[in-house]
Amino acid sequence: MQFWFDFGSTYSYVAAMRVEEACRRAGVSLEYKPFLLGHIFEQQLGIRDSPFNAYPVRGQYMWRDLERLCGKYGLPWRRPSVFPRNSVLAARVACCAGNAIGPLVSALFRANFGEDRDIADAATVRALVDSIGGDGAQALQLAQTPEAKAQLRANTSEAQRLGIFGAPDFVIQGELFFGQDRLEDALAWASTSTGAR
Amino acid sequence: MQFWFDFGSTYSYVAAMRVEEACRRAGVSLEYKPFLLGHIFEQQLGIRDSPFNAYPVRGQYMWRDLERLCGKYGLPWRRPSVFPRNSVLAARVACCAGNAIGPLVSALFRANFGEDRDIADAATVRALVDSIGGDGAQALQLAQTPEAKAQLRANTSEAQRLGIFGAPDFVIQGELFFGQDRLEDALAWASTSTGAR
Repeated sequence: MQFWFDFGSTYSYVAAMRVEEACRRAGVSLEYKPFLLGHIFEQQLGIRDSPFNAYPVRGQYMWRDLERLCGKYGLPWRRPSVFPRNSVLAARVACCAGNAIGPLVSALFRANFGEDRDIADAATVRALVDSIGGDGAQALQLAQTPEAKAQLRANTSEAQRLGIFGAPDFVIQGELFFGQDRLEDALAWASTSTGAR
Repeated sequence: MQFWFDFGSTYSYVAAMRVEEACRRAGVSLEYKPFLLGHIFEQQLGIRDSPFNAYPVRGQYMWRDLERLCGKYGLPWRRPSVFPRNSVLAARVACCAGNAIGPLVSALFRANFGEDRDIADAATVRALVDSIGGDGAQALQLAQTPEAKAQLRANTSEAQRLGIFGAPDFVIQGELFFGQDRLEDALAWASTSTGAR
């Protein structure tokens, strides 16, 4: 199953903290797909901000909902003082993470939404990579290479091709599921569907 | 628990067909709250259409998702030839339904989304009321009274006051839950929360 997410997205945080365990229980392999949701909002909605800021009634609900969801799943929660945080650097680092992708994604999301740390800041990202046993300085260098930038652009283009309009999303056997609350539906699809469906 | 819905809303259909049984199992009483979602979209988004039409990538996902959800829950599904259907008449009739509200809501939603029938048409609504053992002609008369119109306007105003921005919604102990996929979370809230929460 592919897990599509943006490091600045609140509901992506909840999904990111649940997805690995859920896939393990379901016996489904997991592929992390970071992309830039802001680019998609700009293209589809014509806004250069989160819809949760552009449409404040929706935003007010989301903040309360996140608090409830973090309570439900036992996740740390501190409302970020900046929202949405620029996720480009974090996403580029994730594109180069290799086998460390799982711990890296958890560390970055927890910093943004559990600790209100600025994941747009290079020193913060470096420290987070170091904290999971990686080489933070090297990760920052890799993130600036043309290959890392091209990979993130390619992911964002693929997200558009898949019909993605928000985050998080799960793609399994060609089916797109939008929203952290559909993780279980996506995994159930894998276990019940056939090629003919 | 209050169930807030619009008869033209696809996800409200899925919720409407599930909510009574789910409440019964949870031992929670159910109050139907029809309102006019179009009015809210106009106020909050500045659009006079469904966001699923205004934002076609989102719409394309929704139609596929509805098909899947109806499969999951064993609900009849036929994509309506008109979307969204004008829900004013149906909502006014629902405001006067009294104890027949449950069967009426099911009949109207099933007609719109399971049978592609025009619930904006008076003769169709009359026939649907008759089909559940009511008096269709009388229901149409009641729906045109100032009281029925005022009730629907009051519901829509209350929805705005509650911070509603889409449908369906569940309100329980002062908490708003948006989306048919949050029905279980809303009911779980009732059983676990205390007044102090």
